[in-house]
Amino acid sequence: MLSIRPATVNDAGLLLCLIRELAEYEKELDSVKTTEAELARDGFGDDPKFRAMIAERDGETAGYALVCEVYSTWTGRHLYLEDLYVRPQFRGKGIGKALMAKVARLAIQENYYAMRWEVLDWNKPSIEVYRGLGAEFLEAWRLMWLTGDPLRELAESAP
Amino acid sequence: MLSIRPATVNDAGLLLCLIRELAEYEKELDSVKTTEAELARDGFGDDPKFRAMIAERDGETAGYALVCEVYSTWTGRHLYLEDLYVRPQFRGKGIGKALMAKVARLAIQENYYAMRWEVLDWNKPSIEVYRGLGAEFLEAWRLMWLTGDPLRELAESAP
Repeated sequence: MLSIRPATVNDAGLLLCLIRELAEYEKELDSVKTTEAELARDGFGDDPKFRAMIAERDGETAGYALVCEVYSTWTGRHLYLEDLYVRPQFRGKGIGKALMAKVARLAIQENYYAMRWEVLDWNKPSIEVYRGLGAEFLEAWRLMWLTGDPLRELAESAP
Repeated sequence: MLSIRPATVNDAGLLLCLIRELAEYEKELDSVKTTEAELARDGFGDDPKFRAMIAERDGETAGYALVCEVYSTWTGRHLYLEDLYVRPQFRGKGIGKALMAKVARLAIQENYYAMRWEVLDWNKPSIEVYRGLGAEFLEAWRLMWLTGDPLRELAESAP
């Protein structure tokens, strides 16, 4: 039996564990800098920055989804799916789709214009699954970011 | 003389005007669904979803930057640069770079891990400018989104 429940502050440790599993799958474990205390504060403190749901199958943790909010100047608030993960032994049972559907329901209930997410361009099977749900692949857009010393240097050059 | 100031609720109309100019430049004017009242509420109400800065040159509106916040499970809060725009007659004067630097300063002052944004893949000159500032181009990531009827249908399928 599958159930999906909202994560609470008591899940901060479990969430970090799942976040690390997902990062390891993406061969990016070293990129995870967050701590359990930070997740507790950022997700469940006075000013929550994200919400998460945990999928359980027969009482065992099977995966999670984690969302935050972004703003579009064209269409207002969007729900941003930062992480979607199903543990290897629970795959092929519709759990990923169920998590996506729960996120979609949240988006509809709370009047978000859209849900959006990022995908690796080589991950064709996932892209096809998402397309099958009616999602649009934004062909021309790419992501950039600035952090560390270059960010500090740019900040120091501000007029 | 260049000055950059935070936008206030009194700028909602001006912001919508600039948002529409940028969308027109991107040949996407029909995509702009937001109204002045929504911008006033979403940017300057009880629970602001974005912040904006307006650049003025010799007292004339020259451009704007608009940011919101996103959450990364790897590195925490990022400052998301949703829009950066300089009016055509004010280009080539360092105003875009000055706006970027102001956003970077905000990111440093408020302890964001990174600033990030999206760019069109054919916009090589901008990509090179951003790389010159030390920004990283995320080669492999693509964007997807889901809205309208497919979003509603997925929501209705939730367990």
